Amino acid sequence: MNAGSKPTDIQINAERLWGSLMDMAKIGATPKGGVKRLTLTDLDRQGRDQFVSWCTAAGLAVTVDGVGNIFARRAGRNNALPPVVSGSHLDTQPSGGRFDGCFGVMAALEVARTLNDRDLQTEAPFEVAMWTNEEGSRYLPVMGGSGAFTGAHTVEEILAAPDLDGVSFGDALRAIGYAGAAPVGGRRLGAYFEAHIEQGPLLENTGNTIGVVTGALGQRWFEVAVRGMDAHAGPTPMHLRRDALYGASFLIQEVNRLAKATEHSRGTVGMIVNRPNSRNVVPGETVISVDFRDTDVFGLDRMEQGIRAAAQRISAEHALEIDMRQTVFFPPCHFDASCVAAVRAGAARLGYRHMDIVSGAGHDAVNIAGVAPTAMIFVPCEGGISHNEIENATPEDVAAGCNVLLQAVLAQAG
Amino acid sequence: MNAGSKPTDIQINAERLWGSLMDMAKIGATPKGGVKRLTLTDLDRQGRDQFVSWCTAAGLAVTVDGVGNIFARRAGRNNALPPVVSGSHLDTQPSGGRFDGCFGVMAALEVARTLNDRDLQTEAPFEVAMWTNEEGSRYLPVMGGSGAFTGAHTVEEILAAPDLDGVSFGDALRAIGYAGAAPVGGRRLGAYFEAHIEQGPLLENTGNTIGVVTGALGQRWFEVAVRGMDAHAGPTPMHLRRDALYGASFLIQEVNRLAKATEHSRGTVGMIVNRPNSRNVVPGETVISVDFRDTDVFGLDRMEQGIRAAAQRISAEHALEIDMRQTVFFPPCHFDASCVAAVRAGAARLGYRHMDIVSGAGHDAVNIAGVAPTAMIFVPCEGGISHNEIENATPEDVAAGCNVLLQAVLAQAG
Repeated sequence: MNAGSKPTDIQINAERLWGSLMDMAKIGATPKGGVKRLTLTDLDRQGRDQFVSWCTAAGLAVTVDGVGNIFARRAGRNNALPPVVSGSHLDTQPSGGRFDGCFGVMAALEVARTLNDRDLQTEAPFEVAMWTNEEGSRYLPVMGGSGAFTGAHTVEEILAAPDLDGVSFGDALRAIGYAGAAPVGGRRLGAYFEAHIEQGPLLENTGNTIGVVTGALGQRWFEVAVRGMDAHAGPTPMHLRRDALYGASFLIQEVNRLAKATEHSRGTVGMIVNRPNSRNVVPGETVISVDFRDTDVFGLDRMEQGIRAAAQRISAEHALEIDMRQTVFFPPCHFDASCVAAVRAGAARLGYRHMDIVSGAGHDAVNIAGVAPTAMIFVPCEGGISHNEIENATPEDVAAGCNVLLQAVLAQAG
Repeated sequence: MNAGSKPTDIQINAERLWGSLMDMAKIGATPKGGVKRLTLTDLDRQGRDQFVSWCTAAGLAVTVDGVGNIFARRAGRNNALPPVVSGSHLDTQPSGGRFDGCFGVMAALEVARTLNDRDLQTEAPFEVAMWTNEEGSRYLPVMGGSGAFTGAHTVEEILAAPDLDGVSFGDALRAIGYAGAAPVGGRRLGAYFEAHIEQGPLLENTGNTIGVVTGALGQRWFEVAVRGMDAHAGPTPMHLRRDALYGASFLIQEVNRLAKATEHSRGTVGMIVNRPNSRNVVPGETVISVDFRDTDVFGLDRMEQGIRAAAQRISAEHALEIDMRQTVFFPPCHFDASCVAAVRAGAARLGYRHMDIVSGAGHDAVNIAGVAPTAMIFVPCEGGISHNEIENATPEDVAAGCNVLLQAVLAQAG
């Protein structure tokens, strides 16, 4: 590091960061101001080409691995050290916004550019990462590129996945020219940081600029089928009914009651399918989704036990059959204490209002946390809205998040 | 009436009744054992032709009115008296059964045939009625033929109604040759009886053969829209949510609670539409149907007031907007005391286990009750199931219902 400047003096170029974000948002721009840039489409290729050209212009060495993950490396003083890495993804939801994912990649690129501006050399190398297919809109599994990197999924499994038209991930990757030669994963990272919009309302509601992300909620999802008996709404007395929707209403309330018991629990019934769903027929079958999230696995267990007990009570009381089937399980994720501290210290040093926060959603960082010391930085998004074309964030907030990222990277890279 | 036989001696011909029912069920028979004979189709024409030929063979004088209602008249001793009428409908639901409607027409025909067998002449004339389009599956309004007869709907309104292919009721009626010359309604009926399967489980569950129908429930339907805000299931804390489905769950329970308060109240949420209905999104809008039924209008008012009050509470407590819109209103119907007594006395005289019962569904008799002394006779249907191809009733029960109808007709026709 140059003798003349201390880390606290360095600021990223907020105008350049915003310009790159807005330039990238033109690729797949939608009439409503959002972005549709599905993974491994030609628009994804255009986004990658733009990103790679910026990296090359910044003097970074670009490698692409076998599932299309891109790493743009800035050498350190000691290149034997494992790199400090930062990034996110460039693919979007079908009706996505300009910031989800893209902010994390552009922020990491801006850190490299800022280091170039100041001619600062870090001890460890620094890499900007772009992970393939975080959204999972076109190919399952979600967070597939980072999952292949960590070994959560095999490369074969990722490449074989078909989209709805039967085009495999591997064929689509080759078609856009991003089937790279580098091996997938199998190397150490010194630390991983990911900047991201919050996708929730907490920062905005509390007037904080920076969320110091300490981990991500574990998730346990169920599909619950409630079965009773179709009956005519007129002739069938109340006491002879076996109303599946009525039974489901108690489950919906129990999911909410269980989740309200602790601050970091979530319980959501987002989907309901009711049959025959006719105005004058007592419903015979109702299926609901249950999405439980919690900071610790005991919280998930508590809610699972609670909903199973409730299902038994409701089944007996209302003469209904209730079947529960688990569909998703991710264990809770706790980020690395030293990385989290680096983020918190960076926010404090720069004088940004900040708070500790737990990510409710999954991110590539949740995968990477399994193989490297990891933390995330959240910035507010307007109204807490994302996965939506109206997703928005301010130039000031994204600059603040990027400045905190720079501080954290410098702290870890030395 | 002949000197040698008292009404109590007379029994209908159970085998002939069952034979006519099964013959009629062949017209539009479905592979699963049901009947699809939609109103004003060629199958309806075939059913009408069969019915008219049986009536003519029984010496009845057939007239058809301007909406296709058919009346088959057996002269009385005093033909200046208004006729005693019995009947129902021959049209079915798209996946209908063999008994709904058809039983009431065949039972009335069997009464005429039995009077012929015994050479009995009643004081007042007796007419077998077949009402057009009771089901409302192809044309709205439901119970349209009887509704035109009573003046509940104008003839012009009925004839102008289009089906989904744009074919008007009037054109379809002419096409099958049943646009009759007789004026629609405008004449007095001495009494009207309608035999029907119960379409509910009460008779079967209580071991009764005959339901003495004292009236029909009034109906008041609502469409209730609950509006909150879409939010991600992960990042959004419970206390910041405006979950429309969670709010709707309280309305569903309140509808049931209100209806359980009295024996003759019904409350049903049969339909629910949830948006965006995605597993990991807090629902932003949920629309439910509410179907209230009660024997008296004060009961309907009580439930309406109850659900409106609950909507206000739920709206305030959960930060939701709730809009209620009434979509259907039929006032409760009380059948004629003397006609009901004639049915009850007939069942008692013949030694059938019977109970008073209120019809939860609408029937042509509910329309006719507005212009003539009316009652209905219910017989059990298997499992309470109707509007279904597996709808079933036993030969013994339909014969019992027809015998009670004969007693009631004789009591009123003299």
